[in-house]
Amino acid sequence: MISNLMRPKVNGSSAIRRMFEEGKKLAAVYGPENVYDFSLGNPNVPAPEELRDAMIDILKTEDPLKLHGYMSNAGFDETRQAIADDLNHRYGTVYSAANIVMTAGAGSAMNITMRSILEPGDEVIVFAPYFLEYNNYLSNYGAVPVVIAPHPESGFMPDVQEMCAKITPKTKAVIINNPNNPTGAVYPAEVISQLADALKSKQEELGTVIYIISDEPYRELVYGDAKVPHIPDFYNNTLICYSYSKSLSLPGERIGYVLVPPQSDGWEEFVLSLSTANRMLGIVNAPSLQQLAIARCTGLRSNVAFYERNGADLYEGLTAMGFSCVKPDGAFYLWVKSPIDDDAAFCDELKNERVLSTPGSAFMGPGYFRLSYCVSHETVVNSMPSFKKVAARYFG
Amino acid sequence: MISNLMRPKVNGSSAIRRMFEEGKKLAAVYGPENVYDFSLGNPNVPAPEELRDAMIDILKTEDPLKLHGYMSNAGFDETRQAIADDLNHRYGTVYSAANIVMTAGAGSAMNITMRSILEPGDEVIVFAPYFLEYNNYLSNYGAVPVVIAPHPESGFMPDVQEMCAKITPKTKAVIINNPNNPTGAVYPAEVISQLADALKSKQEELGTVIYIISDEPYRELVYGDAKVPHIPDFYNNTLICYSYSKSLSLPGERIGYVLVPPQSDGWEEFVLSLSTANRMLGIVNAPSLQQLAIARCTGLRSNVAFYERNGADLYEGLTAMGFSCVKPDGAFYLWVKSPIDDDAAFCDELKNERVLSTPGSAFMGPGYFRLSYCVSHETVVNSMPSFKKVAARYFG
Repeated sequence: MISNLMRPKVNGSSAIRRMFEEGKKLAAVYGPENVYDFSLGNPNVPAPEELRDAMIDILKTEDPLKLHGYMSNAGFDETRQAIADDLNHRYGTVYSAANIVMTAGAGSAMNITMRSILEPGDEVIVFAPYFLEYNNYLSNYGAVPVVIAPHPESGFMPDVQEMCAKITPKTKAVIINNPNNPTGAVYPAEVISQLADALKSKQEELGTVIYIISDEPYRELVYGDAKVPHIPDFYNNTLICYSYSKSLSLPGERIGYVLVPPQSDGWEEFVLSLSTANRMLGIVNAPSLQQLAIARCTGLRSNVAFYERNGADLYEGLTAMGFSCVKPDGAFYLWVKSPIDDDAAFCDELKNERVLSTPGSAFMGPGYFRLSYCVSHETVVNSMPSFKKVAARYFG
Repeated sequence: MISNLMRPKVNGSSAIRRMFEEGKKLAAVYGPENVYDFSLGNPNVPAPEELRDAMIDILKTEDPLKLHGYMSNAGFDETRQAIADDLNHRYGTVYSAANIVMTAGAGSAMNITMRSILEPGDEVIVFAPYFLEYNNYLSNYGAVPVVIAPHPESGFMPDVQEMCAKITPKTKAVIINNPNNPTGAVYPAEVISQLADALKSKQEELGTVIYIISDEPYRELVYGDAKVPHIPDFYNNTLICYSYSKSLSLPGERIGYVLVPPQSDGWEEFVLSLSTANRMLGIVNAPSLQQLAIARCTGLRSNVAFYERNGADLYEGLTAMGFSCVKPDGAFYLWVKSPIDDDAAFCDELKNERVLSTPGSAFMGPGYFRLSYCVSHETVVNSMPSFKKVAARYFG
């Protein structure tokens, strides 16, 4: 009944579901407060109250035919303009509504982008470890990922040299995810600059267009002095896929956008292609109420300090026990070296102590595991004895 | 920059945009009240007030972490259960939450369905005239439409004989759209029964599974005695793609579902495949606030009488002038025979009298044109002199 292409994907889903079911079983036996679930990326800081108030006000005052009706497939002009204004304010750019296409979150933003540029057999560069859903997105359009190996020595920065060696005439894009899931690393300006220069040379050498697809749902979640570079300042053919899922704690509402900068090749046709892809993929447009709410809330942010404290305490706690971790500069993930090669087996050990984590292999980063710390601070504190018990076996 | 696959789709979009721009030009010259726009399918009956009140109450009372957070890719259990209950109440069925997957509208419902069953080279039967976006959906997965010719003698009922002749081992599905866009026809039980029997024989003969994909966004918009048959009562391998866009006037909000009946082959795996496809296509889940609102509003309906009056008045008016029209039993479309073979040229004649319509060729139904009467009643009344002026040239 379902296609041969889908069957392995569905079986993969079942595996995740089994993990989820096991977590529920543990919670039933030990009580949910005694299970420390670091496996999910669901924000636990509530959305700002101003956003709720904006939604209520829109429902009370807006003409329902406009509020709930179709608009251009690219989204409401006022929302697109508000986003352009916000970006211009922050980056000194000159974007307008015409550079923005509203989407049902970053996942959908990446899909309409890929639908626009990819054909069967095309190649897209990804830097391991990475969010494996990218592979599924690419498979929708018959394209394949070309994986660049992880670079632990550099704190998991993208390996520009290996990237260059693997670019071919079929390379249509390079995916960057900054701040990074799963490592929590933030690529600084000098890394982006190097990568951009290398891609410019490659474009010239091959006479092709190679896009940077920059997946930036964690852009606003950065700590201390870390800064997320605005990639169009470094490289013209950049497409930014953004979501309010993390910055405003709205993952279920499916609202985000693609930014197509005016210096990118054929940007006007590209914007038209993205809106066409919104329609072709049946999404038609980003949900209308969410769009109008965002038009009023581009300046709001989630409580970053909350995640920063969780990340710092988890990092301090685990390194003190002997674990090697990447110090997170952003997002809400801690990337920890597994004391044994078999990261899945180590995650099972943690699970036996009621700690749920994700093996690095699930991100093409074997030998590591990911802790997602968008959890209560109590979860971080109370999980420490469990980590300690396991750590004692390895770091004695 | 954009792919060869996308370029013709984007150019097609430009053509629609040009028509839209021309309409705006006419409105600027003659005043918007003197332009009669029957080209769009955007409901003009406002969403029920109860729905707005439900959304406001949810925003005020629901925990924001639940309200705006991720849920299962298939949707909130309470929403899926409320929909199952509503269907059971209406059709005497025994559906549960497990048979429903929430989607970002019917277009997205069709895409996750197609993503689940189609592989490159597969064939899907469609009955002309039909909503041409289906072709784009199929092209996403490398599948091709097999078009059954229009059957004006039967009032544009599906031609079961031609369907049978065109089914091959590659046929994965038959798309039905009932009530129909663009004809406004409603296929009655005896037609569905015939079609179901023919498909059962074909499944047996070929040893394959052939799904009916039933696209039913207009299901609640039916007039007089017309009844929309519940296809799973006739055929097990039915997948219903539904949207609240028309029944609750929420097209911009992107909320709908797929129903997978428990008598369909491998339905549990199919439901899992649909939720996986929600994730793979980057939509992840239907927007969460809209889902929770629907859970409280399954019994609400839009003002059907409003559309019925528009349809009846337009039908009476145009037939009195000499036009041949299909008497609409549902949806909000009137399908009119063009007095000349070149339907696009005739639509241009109407446009010169400030009436905007859509040529039948845009639905693979040449020689006809479509009037979308989700407009104010004044538009129907005030457009009559324009129609009369053009009619006088042909029906004297």
